Amino acid sequence: MRIGIAQINPIVANFEYNFSKIEKFTKLAKEKQCDLVIFPELSLCGYIPEDLIFQKDFIANTEIYLEKVKQLSNITPILLGFVLKNEGKGKPFFNVVGFFQNGRLEHIYKKRLLPNYDVFNEKRYFEEGNETFVLNLKGKKIGITVCEDGWNTEFSPSYGLYPVDPVEETAKEGCDIILNIAASPFYYKKVYLRETMFSSIAKKYKKPLVFINQAGGVDGIIFDGDSCIFDCEGKIVKKAKRFEEDFIVWDTEEIGEGSFPVEENENKLIFDALTTGVRDFINKIGAKKVHLGLSGGIDSALVAVIAKYALGRENVLGIMLPSPYSSEGSIKDSVKLAGNLGINLEKIEITPYFEVLKSQLPSKIGDLKDITEQNIQARLRGLILMAYSNNNYSILLNTGNKSELAVGYATLYGDMCGALSVIGDVYKTSVYSLAEWINYVYGEIIPKEIIKKPPSAELKPGQKDQDSLPPYPVLDAILEDYIENCKSEAEICERRGFDIKLVEKVISMVQKYEFKRKQAPPVIKITSKAFVSGFRFPITSKLKG
Amino acid sequence: MRIGIAQINPIVANFEYNFSKIEKFTKLAKEKQCDLVIFPELSLCGYIPEDLIFQKDFIANTEIYLEKVKQLSNITPILLGFVLKNEGKGKPFFNVVGFFQNGRLEHIYKKRLLPNYDVFNEKRYFEEGNETFVLNLKGKKIGITVCEDGWNTEFSPSYGLYPVDPVEETAKEGCDIILNIAASPFYYKKVYLRETMFSSIAKKYKKPLVFINQAGGVDGIIFDGDSCIFDCEGKIVKKAKRFEEDFIVWDTEEIGEGSFPVEENENKLIFDALTTGVRDFINKIGAKKVHLGLSGGIDSALVAVIAKYALGRENVLGIMLPSPYSSEGSIKDSVKLAGNLGINLEKIEITPYFEVLKSQLPSKIGDLKDITEQNIQARLRGLILMAYSNNNYSILLNTGNKSELAVGYATLYGDMCGALSVIGDVYKTSVYSLAEWINYVYGEIIPKEIIKKPPSAELKPGQKDQDSLPPYPVLDAILEDYIENCKSEAEICERRGFDIKLVEKVISMVQKYEFKRKQAPPVIKITSKAFVSGFRFPITSKLKG
Repeated sequence: MRIGIAQINPIVANFEYNFSKIEKFTKLAKEKQCDLVIFPELSLCGYIPEDLIFQKDFIANTEIYLEKVKQLSNITPILLGFVLKNEGKGKPFFNVVGFFQNGRLEHIYKKRLLPNYDVFNEKRYFEEGNETFVLNLKGKKIGITVCEDGWNTEFSPSYGLYPVDPVEETAKEGCDIILNIAASPFYYKKVYLRETMFSSIAKKYKKPLVFINQAGGVDGIIFDGDSCIFDCEGKIVKKAKRFEEDFIVWDTEEIGEGSFPVEENENKLIFDALTTGVRDFINKIGAKKVHLGLSGGIDSALVAVIAKYALGRENVLGIMLPSPYSSEGSIKDSVKLAGNLGINLEKIEITPYFEVLKSQLPSKIGDLKDITEQNIQARLRGLILMAYSNNNYSILLNTGNKSELAVGYATLYGDMCGALSVIGDVYKTSVYSLAEWINYVYGEIIPKEIIKKPPSAELKPGQKDQDSLPPYPVLDAILEDYIENCKSEAEICERRGFDIKLVEKVISMVQKYEFKRKQAPPVIKITSKAFVSGFRFPITSKLKG
Repeated sequence: MRIGIAQINPIVANFEYNFSKIEKFTKLAKEKQCDLVIFPELSLCGYIPEDLIFQKDFIANTEIYLEKVKQLSNITPILLGFVLKNEGKGKPFFNVVGFFQNGRLEHIYKKRLLPNYDVFNEKRYFEEGNETFVLNLKGKKIGITVCEDGWNTEFSPSYGLYPVDPVEETAKEGCDIILNIAASPFYYKKVYLRETMFSSIAKKYKKPLVFINQAGGVDGIIFDGDSCIFDCEGKIVKKAKRFEEDFIVWDTEEIGEGSFPVEENENKLIFDALTTGVRDFINKIGAKKVHLGLSGGIDSALVAVIAKYALGRENVLGIMLPSPYSSEGSIKDSVKLAGNLGINLEKIEITPYFEVLKSQLPSKIGDLKDITEQNIQARLRGLILMAYSNNNYSILLNTGNKSELAVGYATLYGDMCGALSVIGDVYKTSVYSLAEWINYVYGEIIPKEIIKKPPSAELKPGQKDQDSLPPYPVLDAILEDYIENCKSEAEICERRGFDIKLVEKVISMVQKYEFKRKQAPPVIKITSKAFVSGFRFPITSKLKG
């Protein structure tokens, strides 16, 4: 039996576009003599439309395009995910996979385990199914599971979250192949974790396992593709591309060598995720060109590199916006960086605007405080970068990192401007290691000077980040323990040997500056817990250690 | 039997503060010879801490303060809600009510129906309970339910969402009194709906019903208090204050006249909700003073009135920021409004800053387009208003309305700046009716000229909102049908007799400008579906009608 695995990159709720993909790959599957073609979870609408699901036109479109899929199944049998209205009690919809054959929708499987943590809100929309589905086709019995259905085994970090294990139930029904149809969001530690988990499942049940995943980015959420076939020893025998749309064929009778999962280079995973995130965001909103403020610092340098590899150098513009406090070095370093990347570069002094504000505002609002002057500079840059957007239909990329976002070391409506926060889930220490890795792999793109200089916002004379913040390795250790691992203040001190006052200070900053993150752009998620999508609390709250 | 109903206004996750309230009202209950004192849902931490629940220090604090509550129960028996760790399978916590007596936690009731729609995300945190709890105290049997537990009866709009009806089960166990311990978020149509629902439940079971609700605002979510006792005919016999903290005592043997629920004036409900939202937001973040841009238009005029009634005139500053396109009338009207309100007023011309940008920027970014010039003005205002914030520790209130937010008729980082969107859930047509109502009730505070003039952003000569948007009554009808009622384009046309092209245009604007709303401040919710908290979808999506 030959199975076509169509790892598509849909546009959410764009039924026309998604159906064109489904049509294309169904025809390709036929060409490649496949007996079945499968698509990722909720492929008809793309994972996940969030509250658009509630709109009547969403379900109306679903019904229209389901008819087209039925027609298409005259070519080749299809397994395809879509949203089904729940006519009974409970939540208004089901997350289902339909089996289409000979012009008919022959069976509907309803997803049984609905994730409702981190970026997932499936219980907002869906009611659980409670039946297994083993598809009999060409003498093969394929046990169907949908994404989270595969994550309540003993090999999973979320084991025990649900009362049933759909994989086990399906296996007990005597399937020959286990199929997991997913839209599984990326974070860099998950890739290996997921592969070893599915490897262990295949090995445990001594059955081949097919994992199919969505590819591409949806706002800040990246689906890494990585569709994969495991043999009954848990070895990987076939694999689709990572992050990109792909189509592979697996012949169930094929005997491959196979190999067990291996860990990938973290920096490569993160870099590829970030470029995918930028590329898909820009493409899917129908834009082409981006720009960003180039400060001469490492954050904007990294984002410039990501933008270039995502969109091509001709679509990226760096804008230097020096103020009276910008160092000569910063300009020189930005020029060098832009030269290395081959991107366009523009310089717009903010000094004339800053000076007129500085001279005239005090009569109205009093002598400008230090913080006021600093924020005015950042906001003038924001204003100019957005004016560039308006004037040239170019999208502004935000260049703030996760450490800054965590402790509010950023100006709301200033350097927090932008349509997409490219590295808002990358700690400052990871920014450095990504930069080093990029230079190692691509040659010295990021000037050494940028990597070596002490981080500074350059908003007042001689300012260094370290005047206001602990050293980044210390800060990031606290942040990771607190945000991703939910450690208590006492635990962090004990584990890391840090001073309690320091830990308290950092955590109180994380809490205090939630109001800035509430107005941050979407953040590309690369860790197990990203701001905006995975960590939120009321502004008017106060938790003490 | 005498029951003390302590309708408190907690600060989320501020255990120390909340416990001080619990202590105060427990002592007051004792003074008033109560046999029991009850607090709203999750009162120990305040509803709802969102992801702070996952932090170890959250549960550690809970445990510390539970010990104090036990001690306190030596004074008077207490029913109090808190977060309990789930040591078994499933979600990590339970949403519970504890019965405390004689220094012990004697019983724990676990909330059974967990809402996961609109502003609710309880399935992100909690596992359902599956047992009833009828408390025997002083010869009375009190059937305990927690908030949503009371909303699966035939009188509820969410009837059928869950497989069980905890009220019915509790009633069947033969309780004498039904108790609903809630944190029930406000929207203006809900007040009457909720009262009639509980009235019907009391009547159906022929049992008195006690509804206790949280009071006050948590970011954009307002809890309207309105704790209420219904007799067994469904008549209201006692009622706590609306929106405010309050303490009332109900003697179960007391025979009152009672009356059935009546509908309140909508404008009054909305106005009181908005003032509560502003007051609590400012108080709970520890601030005192606010300022806002006064444009001479009706939106900022309304927000100025709300701010004054929320915080007192001495804490409100209106800042006029005229540009070359501001009309004389706008200044005059703002001066009159500020005079009527007795608030402080400042004028900061943006013209000098605008002129220097207009003359120097084109050499860098090309001739300024119309939209660029307009947004520069809005962003200069944002910059100056934020500079005022930094310089004077005053909080900027956002003045945009729901109609604008819906169709993106607002400048991101410009007039979308602010810590709190005061009227971001109020349609423009409701802004007018609120203004008229205010003038009717408080005398003519808002100058007639402001109400009468055609709406304009005044960002270019002679500009009127109606040049770019349909008339507001038409726009708002489409928006309400689409956003709150999820109607399809075809249904809206049919129902309202509007042109399909117009409806399509409006809905495509709602979709297109989600990217702005993703960076909007928290919005005070007053309708059944507010942006930010209750309606969200990916920016990179496209749903056609």
